[in-house]
Amino acid sequence: MTTVNIALKEAYQLAFDVLSSNGFSAAHADAIARNVTAGERDGCASHGLWRLLGIVETLRKGKVSPDAEPTIVDQAPAIVKADANGAYSLCAYEKALPLLIEKTRHCGIAALAINRCVHFSALFADVEPLTDVGLVGYACTPSHAWVAPAGGTQPLFGTNPIAFGWPRGAKPPFIFDMATSAAARGEIQLHQRAGKPIPEGWGIDSDGQPTTDPQAVLDGAMLTFGGHKGSALAAMVELFAGPLIGDMTSAESLAWDNGAGGLPYGGELILALDPQRFLGAEAGTHLARERSEKQGLDVSRGLYDEICALRG
Amino acid sequence: MTTVNIALKEAYQLAFDVLSSNGFSAAHADAIARNVTAGERDGCASHGLWRLLGIVETLRKGKVSPDAEPTIVDQAPAIVKADANGAYSLCAYEKALPLLIEKTRHCGIAALAINRCVHFSALFADVEPLTDVGLVGYACTPSHAWVAPAGGTQPLFGTNPIAFGWPRGAKPPFIFDMATSAAARGEIQLHQRAGKPIPEGWGIDSDGQPTTDPQAVLDGAMLTFGGHKGSALAAMVELFAGPLIGDMTSAESLAWDNGAGGLPYGGELILALDPQRFLGAEAGTHLARERSEKQGLDVSRGLYDEICALRG
Repeated sequence: MTTVNIALKEAYQLAFDVLSSNGFSAAHADAIARNVTAGERDGCASHGLWRLLGIVETLRKGKVSPDAEPTIVDQAPAIVKADANGAYSLCAYEKALPLLIEKTRHCGIAALAINRCVHFSALFADVEPLTDVGLVGYACTPSHAWVAPAGGTQPLFGTNPIAFGWPRGAKPPFIFDMATSAAARGEIQLHQRAGKPIPEGWGIDSDGQPTTDPQAVLDGAMLTFGGHKGSALAAMVELFAGPLIGDMTSAESLAWDNGAGGLPYGGELILALDPQRFLGAEAGTHLARERSEKQGLDVSRGLYDEICALRG
Repeated sequence: MTTVNIALKEAYQLAFDVLSSNGFSAAHADAIARNVTAGERDGCASHGLWRLLGIVETLRKGKVSPDAEPTIVDQAPAIVKADANGAYSLCAYEKALPLLIEKTRHCGIAALAINRCVHFSALFADVEPLTDVGLVGYACTPSHAWVAPAGGTQPLFGTNPIAFGWPRGAKPPFIFDMATSAAARGEIQLHQRAGKPIPEGWGIDSDGQPTTDPQAVLDGAMLTFGGHKGSALAAMVELFAGPLIGDMTSAESLAWDNGAGGLPYGGELILALDPQRFLGAEAGTHLARERSEKQGLDVSRGLYDEICALRG
């Protein structure tokens, strides 16, 4: 494989130029270019520059707005709603983020519901801006109906990822971002292109029978991770980021796509929690520990001398 | 097996009498007796009358308060804190519930953190009172450190259950309540007593090797469901219902137990979300559909006659 070495700045510029020349507004081209460059930077190639192909294809198929401005609504004391108006989710997320943070600091917990967005980006990118400011984050979104519920034979759920982020002060945050499907759809497609069988447990054929044939799974249904428990979580994601926020399920998203092969369209739910508000006065203890570990202890000279004298 | 048939009322009275005669206050005896009777009623024997044995044993070992009154704190606009003061969690939950509901209806989303509680009860019992009033519920709690993280050889996580509830109007709610461990600890103990091997994937021995010997797993470590993904969720539960709310992790709970064999001690986090507040004006559509399905459609006589005339 021949590779091209490009600096991060060049990668961003390449992405931005491709997006602009295909008709994306400067705001969307910038947000998307930053997102895919960051994915590539963090070694997450599945959500890196490769995504530009699907991003542009979805536009050419007329399944995403290149320039819609998001509408932000202060929905309730602890709810922000962001209507992406048919564009990719990123601008809606970024425009709503300051109000989400403000509400979380005030209320202790708050939610951001993004509606009518086309979704391609990794969820960890929507959790990390929260851990960056000391908040705990949780995000989920449906996709297209490709995954059968445990015991079922027909696709109903999307790959329905869940991401969680925990701030650790100056250290990098603890973050996970995982599909509730056993494998990514792209992994199955890669096996199919390479003519390789897939591991057992990834999917079933259109008769509902277990198979290791990637094409049979693409025509049949993928499976959730962890059997009925992963299936329960996939259902929860459908409800959280679908009917709870007045948006589409994965089945509705696939029906809306109508065979065009565009990216999933629907909603995303993001929760933010403020440890300082949960801990209240106790938060001081944690801050004290952090300060002590960094700056050492200030002990009164008298006590220090008395203790030292005990050494005899 | 000889069985005894008792009415639900008698089961409650038996549980109440056992708890009272062992020193539980009337408030705690009533809440516990209602809980274990409801578990038995719903066919969940693992959280039914059988639990009374561990409930009383934990009291006799001095690991739970029989009469502590919970302290409810209005912590933030969207946070209620309930300090169980060392008693079982149920009275703290019940006393805090009205304020949690009030905050959820006002803010759209709210959290209840229960601290310093001993925990024996099924989480679905803490989610169903929310779906009963039309709210979405989510609950989680650590337990004792019996479960190894994916790739690890030593126990660190508890069985760390997650429960979710979705209201469905007049129909029964959609609820799940699942451990993030591959199996319940009680299941492994039952296999051990019966001298039967356990399925692969439930646990590892103290050298970190896979085993189907129940005793080796009880001395070693249980595993999470779904490999590294279940493990990530178990870590999330530790953080949500431990340090986020200023309470113990599963490892700290087991250390506090100090070999007494008491029930887990620590915190529980419950989130409540109000679909009406998320949907806003759109909620009217859903209400209209429900009304139409129940009461039929009111069509003006003029329109009705005109349409009928189209039949020719």
